[in-house]
Amino acid sequence: MTVRAAVAGASGYAGGEILRLLASHPEVEIGVLTGNSNAGQQLGALQPHLTPLAERVLEPTSADRLRGHDVVFLALPHGQSAAVAEELGTEVLLVDCGADFRLTDAADWERFYDTPYAGHWPYGLPELPGARSSLAGTRRIAVPGCYPTAVSLALFPAYAAGLAESDAVVVAASGSSGAGKSPKPHLLGSEVMGAMSPYGVGGAHRHTPEIIQNLSAAAGERVTVSFTPTLAPMPRGILATCTARARPGVTPEALRAAYEKTLCDEPFVRLLPEGRWPSTATVYGSNTALLQVTLDEAAGRIVVVSAIDNLTKGTAGGAVQSMNIALGLPEELGLSTIGVAP
Amino acid sequence: MTVRAAVAGASGYAGGEILRLLASHPEVEIGVLTGNSNAGQQLGALQPHLTPLAERVLEPTSADRLRGHDVVFLALPHGQSAAVAEELGTEVLLVDCGADFRLTDAADWERFYDTPYAGHWPYGLPELPGARSSLAGTRRIAVPGCYPTAVSLALFPAYAAGLAESDAVVVAASGSSGAGKSPKPHLLGSEVMGAMSPYGVGGAHRHTPEIIQNLSAAAGERVTVSFTPTLAPMPRGILATCTARARPGVTPEALRAAYEKTLCDEPFVRLLPEGRWPSTATVYGSNTALLQVTLDEAAGRIVVVSAIDNLTKGTAGGAVQSMNIALGLPEELGLSTIGVAP
Amino acid sequence: MTVRAAVAGASGYAGGEILRLLASHPEVEIGVLTGNSNAGQQLGALQPHLTPLAERVLEPTSADRLRGHDVVFLALPHGQSAAVAEELGTEVLLVDCGADFRLTDAADWERFYDTPYAGHWPYGLPELPGARSSLAGTRRIAVPGCYPTAVSLALFPAYAAGLAESDAVVVAASGSSGAGKSPKPHLLGSEVMGAMSPYGVGGAHRHTPEIIQNLSAAAGERVTVSFTPTLAPMPRGILATCTARARPGVTPEALRAAYEKTLCDEPFVRLLPEGRWPSTATVYGSNTALLQVTLDEAAGRIVVVSAIDNLTKGTAGGAVQSMNIALGLPEELGLSTIGVAP
Amino acid sequence: MTVRAAVAGASGYAGGEILRLLASHPEVEIGVLTGNSNAGQQLGALQPHLTPLAERVLEPTSADRLRGHDVVFLALPHGQSAAVAEELGTEVLLVDCGADFRLTDAADWERFYDTPYAGHWPYGLPELPGARSSLAGTRRIAVPGCYPTAVSLALFPAYAAGLAESDAVVVAASGSSGAGKSPKPHLLGSEVMGAMSPYGVGGAHRHTPEIIQNLSAAAGERVTVSFTPTLAPMPRGILATCTARARPGVTPEALRAAYEKTLCDEPFVRLLPEGRWPSTATVYGSNTALLQVTLDEAAGRIVVVSAIDNLTKGTAGGAVQSMNIALGLPEELGLSTIGVAP
Repeated sequence: MTVRAAVAGASGYAGGEILRLLASHPEVEIGVLTGNSNAGQQLGALQPHLTPLAERVLEPTSADRLRGHDVVFLALPHGQSAAVAEELGTEVLLVDCGADFRLTDAADWERFYDTPYAGHWPYGLPELPGARSSLAGTRRIAVPGCYPTAVSLALFPAYAAGLAESDAVVVAASGSSGAGKSPKPHLLGSEVMGAMSPYGVGGAHRHTPEIIQNLSAAAGERVTVSFTPTLAPMPRGILATCTARARPGVTPEALRAAYEKTLCDEPFVRLLPEGRWPSTATVYGSNTALLQVTLDEAAGRIVVVSAIDNLTKGTAGGAVQSMNIALGLPEELGLSTIGVAP
Repeated sequence: MTVRAAVAGASGYAGGEILRLLASHPEVEIGVLTGNSNAGQQLGALQPHLTPLAERVLEPTSADRLRGHDVVFLALPHGQSAAVAEELGTEVLLVDCGADFRLTDAADWERFYDTPYAGHWPYGLPELPGARSSLAGTRRIAVPGCYPTAVSLALFPAYAAGLAESDAVVVAASGSSGAGKSPKPHLLGSEVMGAMSPYGVGGAHRHTPEIIQNLSAAAGERVTVSFTPTLAPMPRGILATCTARARPGVTPEALRAAYEKTLCDEPFVRLLPEGRWPSTATVYGSNTALLQVTLDEAAGRIVVVSAIDNLTKGTAGGAVQSMNIALGLPEELGLSTIGVAP
Repeated sequence: MTVRAAVAGASGYAGGEILRLLASHPEVEIGVLTGNSNAGQQLGALQPHLTPLAERVLEPTSADRLRGHDVVFLALPHGQSAAVAEELGTEVLLVDCGADFRLTDAADWERFYDTPYAGHWPYGLPELPGARSSLAGTRRIAVPGCYPTAVSLALFPAYAAGLAESDAVVVAASGSSGAGKSPKPHLLGSEVMGAMSPYGVGGAHRHTPEIIQNLSAAAGERVTVSFTPTLAPMPRGILATCTARARPGVTPEALRAAYEKTLCDEPFVRLLPEGRWPSTATVYGSNTALLQVTLDEAAGRIVVVSAIDNLTKGTAGGAVQSMNIALGLPEELGLSTIGVAP
Repeated sequence: MTVRAAVAGASGYAGGEILRLLASHPEVEIGVLTGNSNAGQQLGALQPHLTPLAERVLEPTSADRLRGHDVVFLALPHGQSAAVAEELGTEVLLVDCGADFRLTDAADWERFYDTPYAGHWPYGLPELPGARSSLAGTRRIAVPGCYPTAVSLALFPAYAAGLAESDAVVVAASGSSGAGKSPKPHLLGSEVMGAMSPYGVGGAHRHTPEIIQNLSAAAGERVTVSFTPTLAPMPRGILATCTARARPGVTPEALRAAYEKTLCDEPFVRLLPEGRWPSTATVYGSNTALLQVTLDEAAGRIVVVSAIDNLTKGTAGGAVQSMNIALGLPEELGLSTIGVAP
């Protein structure tokens, strides 16, 4: 089986990472690449690390160019996916790395975005309860946001096992590629190096409702989350420090057992041996999420720390993993669990 | 008035920063410098950035060498300050940058350290309620830990104003200089660059009881704190993201007003204008703590973010500020509120 | 004597560094600050590290606003200084941090810039032979480029002493602040971190003729220079590795003696003790240039490595040093020789 | 064909990178892993990025443990390979990542190393003239040093084509992993971040004779090289800026044509299109060497800049590439030409 894949938005960071993974996927043949402002340029000038694709030329993004592929990856600005989806019809597998189809509640969407609510698609975080069955055979995948991936993997086992109360507090540090490739003064290297800084504080970040949606689903009730993202001086990676008030009577043993049981068969989530904590450097370029969990008995809180590569498991790797499931391919195909370190 | 100052432990990061500040302090003359394993070496080989002191030679650390100064800064491993203090007597002002005399509760000390409890000295965080009067004229100063400085400045106004409930959750990112200059594999540049990683999770970090002590004093009742420190890929700086459950009825206006009122006269704490958030890069080498506060109404939490330079306001700058108060000098003398940026 | 100083271009990196230094200069009072695209904004939003100046508001750049000061620092795009100079007249001391008046040869200018040649002003590198006398009392200063500062200080002693032949080869690494604050994709943190990359290779960089001008003046004959600048993953600093073919018969002793003799009285240039090599981290925020020299006898080459802070000694510090000389103030006033490290 | 491979020295950076590559090599099965000070530990505690091998336990390094494999990779301290080689005999393919068998001249060895000269083995830089034929079928491979790889690939085409004179000047910047994993104060993250610094200046670096050996072989005459390595604030990568005096009459066209002709069939060397320059970030984790060349006519010098990953093409990737040739496997097997970026 050879899958012909197109990438819309091939000049950005998400598009580049999708291509890095597809280029070594044994069942994928890379088709059309598109990009609007960069149409007509060689990929080698935009993504010089993709040397085998250097001579490929970007075409303008349009349904016409994207038609005729088995899979189309959309790495477009928010609000553009619905129109492409309508034009392409349901014969093609659409994998949307944007936010457009992630939220199940129109009110959540409207509080955070300025385009009309477009609905929701099967959610591409296979590790969540029930996700694999909704992804199998689907023609539409909403790839999760990078922070929701890191946070949901960290906390859903505690909520699903009934060990955590509603009040979650999450502080996550992300590498600068999460902010994209459009040049802005605060993203300059001169500003980013040596700097830790928060943004979207106080519930203002767009990923907040998506995190709440995932944890509430796992808990079976509405969960509140205080979420603070911070920008860290590194190109890639998310470290999410996630705490939730422990239900009365929770023990360290019960907590660890719940995580082990929930995650033991997951190919891309690894609960570390006790005493070791995850680092973003460990998962650089890998599709693995590393986790460690502990109970802070004095504070009465479960503390889970997860590390992912925001562009791999947090975006493109998660997208390929879900594509594999949708197409009936082995879930791990074309995805590495080894990081590039140091 | 010229103050003759000695520095014990001049080859480490804290000692180097103390010397950087003292070298431009208009009322200080730098006396003896000591260091054990590096005794006999020129400072220029150990702290090459301190060019005017490059030819100074380190002496072995002993009370004999330190005697005869007006002030002695101790930047020694934990557990060594009490003996030096006893030998030097009470004529000299001792400024201890170690942990030995920070904690008021012997049980707290014994849970986290392996040397006997040595007592407590006036606590060198002048911004805390009552601190300046206990520092004025004192001959003994316990300089706070770097994390407790960042966290206490962020949250004490909320607790002192009765706006926050007990349940605080703090995640702080520190530059690698906070881990000191002893070479360990996980502190190598190859390991640190590109890496965010947690340590001392679940209440295990030694600064936890000191944070609880400060916030409890401000609150007038025992406060619980979930504290997670993380190591960030930068040499200096702490960004502390601090949340506390808001008391019922707290409004954004009341919250901001409390912070403005508490901090408006502080020379080294700056509450940023609304909408701007602090960055560690902004306070590089400066004695300023930058703060911003907001109320996350959906999550029911006060969120305060503070940024300091761990070596300046978090250690050596705080030490000099407290020394100034103890000696009756202007509190701001020799301390800059300007960072080196970008 | 209080000197009233204005800064045109206060929102950029050079302007910010000038203000950082002037704010602690004991004889300077900071007057009008200007910036074109940022006129009307508070400095705190643009240069948050300059906390004492946070409420200052930028005015539009014009001769009218700049008039009435004793000194005006120009940190403007190339080609704009001549017009300002003409309007302001010769009563004010103009310190131009741009390239406009650095080159003595119109043909050199025209090969590298697209505005008409404007002439040349006394050159603000006081360490060069004869420079101090041309700066004393002047009303016009052309501040050198950052690379020419690092390279000229490294190699002029060898050329002035007749120890080096024409064929110099220089490779210099600069922090990203040297590229300015205008956001461009290749200067994003995501692109800069982890990346060493060259630019302006093969003699194409604008600083090449300025380097040749300085070294040729020291040598008393035209010198050829192969100059390759590279961008390094750090915000500040230049490390210049400079080699020149050694004249026959040059010995290591004669080489070192020439450097010692030439530099021994310089307050801002430090030849390190033998065996120690300079690092950019050592001079972070300092006006010191660190140097080391050796003779590679097998290769027949003199090798000199210099480290400066590109924004301090390489721009703003050099500017203040030259201003001090021009105004008859002590040359070292307001300038630190201590770096902020680690 | 399945090749059973052992790795001696599996806990260091070279050993870790060899394992990263072998783990996805389709014809290799990973056998025994050894490490002296870390024997008995799980690989997961030492190389946490190699998640599929996390439970592997390190054995002590000895010929007994290494026997019975088809290939043994030696990533040992200098001076230990000869003894292992003798004990293992010539049935096994030994791939030595140390320096022991790189130099063809005993006097060169003795000037730079303190163990006896052990001889030389076929040299694992397949791109050099004649290298592939000496590697085909061999049982012994000396993997080149990382700097010699970057510099030789950059300059050998100019020397082989007779376009360059003897006098080469090379300045190379390396990421800190090149200095290994033994903790030393100057390699701490706090020291490395923000720092460019030289070392081994003036011909003192051990890679100097290896560079001269390779370029002299290409030139057919003894070449002099001034080589200055510098440490850059990044974990991986080498950027080598290499210049050589151009022979009279060399034109830009002739220079480019020589590089195109020499390199056009190389799978792992890419001469970039004119106007684009290499960056280390582009080859992160990739086995590609990127090159660009120009003629600085004013300075009379050929300038070539190369970028490699010091651990991949510069060590482990080069080792696997040479192993493939020795075993008659396709040269590109198990090696990626795509970097992980940004």
